[in-house]
Amino acid sequence: MKTTPMRPSMPAPRIADVAELAGVSMSTASKALNDTGQLREDTRARVKDAAAQLGFVVGASGRGGADTRTYTVGLLTTDSFGRFTIPLLMGVEDALAAGKMAIILCDTRDDVLREQHYLQSLQERRVDGLIITGRTTDPRPSIGLPIPTVYAFSPSEDPDDYAVVADEGAGATMAAEHLVAMGSRRIAHVTGPQRHHSADARALAVHETLGDALVAPTLFGHWSEEWGRAAVDMLLASHPDLDGLVCGSDQIARGATDRLREKGVDVPGQVRVTGFDNWEVMALASRPPLTTVDMGLTELGRLAGRTLLDLVEGKPDVPHQQVLTPRLEVRASSL
Amino acid sequence: MKTTPMRPSMPAPRIADVAELAGVSMSTASKALNDTGQLREDTRARVKDAAAQLGFVVGASGRGGADTRTYTVGLLTTDSFGRFTIPLLMGVEDALAAGKMAIILCDTRDDVLREQHYLQSLQERRVDGLIITGRTTDPRPSIGLPIPTVYAFSPSEDPDDYAVVADEGAGATMAAEHLVAMGSRRIAHVTGPQRHHSADARALAVHETLGDALVAPTLFGHWSEEWGRAAVDMLLASHPDLDGLVCGSDQIARGATDRLREKGVDVPGQVRVTGFDNWEVMALASRPPLTTVDMGLTELGRLAGRTLLDLVEGKPDVPHQQVLTPRLEVRASSL
Repeated sequence: MKTTPMRPSMPAPRIADVAELAGVSMSTASKALNDTGQLREDTRARVKDAAAQLGFVVGASGRGGADTRTYTVGLLTTDSFGRFTIPLLMGVEDALAAGKMAIILCDTRDDVLREQHYLQSLQERRVDGLIITGRTTDPRPSIGLPIPTVYAFSPSEDPDDYAVVADEGAGATMAAEHLVAMGSRRIAHVTGPQRHHSADARALAVHETLGDALVAPTLFGHWSEEWGRAAVDMLLASHPDLDGLVCGSDQIARGATDRLREKGVDVPGQVRVTGFDNWEVMALASRPPLTTVDMGLTELGRLAGRTLLDLVEGKPDVPHQQVLTPRLEVRASSL
Repeated sequence: MKTTPMRPSMPAPRIADVAELAGVSMSTASKALNDTGQLREDTRARVKDAAAQLGFVVGASGRGGADTRTYTVGLLTTDSFGRFTIPLLMGVEDALAAGKMAIILCDTRDDVLREQHYLQSLQERRVDGLIITGRTTDPRPSIGLPIPTVYAFSPSEDPDDYAVVADEGAGATMAAEHLVAMGSRRIAHVTGPQRHHSADARALAVHETLGDALVAPTLFGHWSEEWGRAAVDMLLASHPDLDGLVCGSDQIARGATDRLREKGVDVPGQVRVTGFDNWEVMALASRPPLTTVDMGLTELGRLAGRTLLDLVEGKPDVPHQQVLTPRLEVRASSL
């Protein structure tokens, strides 16, 4: 197949070239050119000099006026458009379609080379902005480009970047407090892999909330139904008087409710169970349907889209970190 | 928020204007301008005259040369990027990213007004082509635009359009033949709603394949686990000697295996079960894991992407209908 790149004759200088000439990191160069972040003024000036020398043009960022805009935004995900990205994407679309922005889709599949390829292509297309998301809440490296960028769900490691995230800890606290309010006093916590940010943040919150009501240390394992079943076997053997189970995901909770039923333990009569994610295909198909934490991913996507529009339009005082509080969806598994 | 449309000063004539002036449908106007379809020559000439009169420019279709291309493709889905669109999208991306095409995402959410809005916006952006998909295999109305277009998974009602679809009937036949080959002789078929194209096509194929081995007429219901469980209750009451169950989806099959196990019926020892979709979150979490039909949606997406590139580049003899044969993924539920 014969294809030609967008602007083949004259490759534009890249932020990497500017950073190299100024002797700074890409991230610093980006901040200097965007007038964001906390930098020494001489550093900022050195970067701007380097940019001028190379003829580097800062991407359509609102400061150039509306006529430089392409009304196009890149959405980059590591999640292969899985179940976290989809609801988020719908929210982004709600926010951006209202402003007649087109969304270009970039699925990096957790591949650094694919990500670089896409980012280069999006720069060549002079997108107005970028939304970066993924399948985990572990902070990811900053992309460090001089284009308005919002990290959604997966935050950036750089606190000067703009991020919209869910407060997972608050969600786990809600679930734990709900079980106590319903009368549970001998509760366990079963979750995903240790050192996975979501598992750790939720476990910490559950421990702080439950204290002595927790019958065992958090059981870390996998985000799977199978692990939910195995964990129930272990817990019932060691704590037959268990009366509450905070699960780190709906898949774990579904496996747990299945195994409790198979062992003749009534849910919620003998053990109340909560999930996490409000992934309806799991939460509603469970028997009984799951009480679960909904992180509000669509709302999170809307907020990310609106924040990006604010950045593109050059609005002042856009907050760098925005945290959305989840809500508890109460169903039969805990009542 | 202040936004300006892409080209506000001079709205281009639309295909609808051409169609109206020529006194033909949008679909006919599109075919005439694209030199596709079977039309009388005087109709074609009348449409072209109308287009010339209005100054209507046929979208970037390859015939104008590479310099008119935007290297941008619109992907329009009714599925809100659900589980059918996602694997398909990955295939489209595989095919198009190799050609450095950007994909603009349009989620119509089954709303005709949203669809029209998106199609208008994509035309204004002069996309090189369109891929249209959805959540069902029911044929949908042709969009009738003079832009290279491929319908993927959800075909167009117009046989002159380009479509890439899965042979659902062949998939259902594979599942039924597999059960017979494994030794099942008293088989039932449980599927989704009647008059849903997928349910009907699969049911027809199962009936033709199984003949007398089918113990009952197809049980039509819902694409849900709950329906799978309810159908097993009905079938075991009327046909306790059942030894095979062809399910129209993995969700139905999962519900069925759950209920069979709860009733003390061994799967696959007493009843062999097959699903449909190879939706791994269902098929692998079932106990036992499901033998299921995989429609090859990613491959279908790749084929749609390559077909669109062929159309954009003006290649001759691009086939109008391409049908992909599914494969059977054999797991423990039928062995």
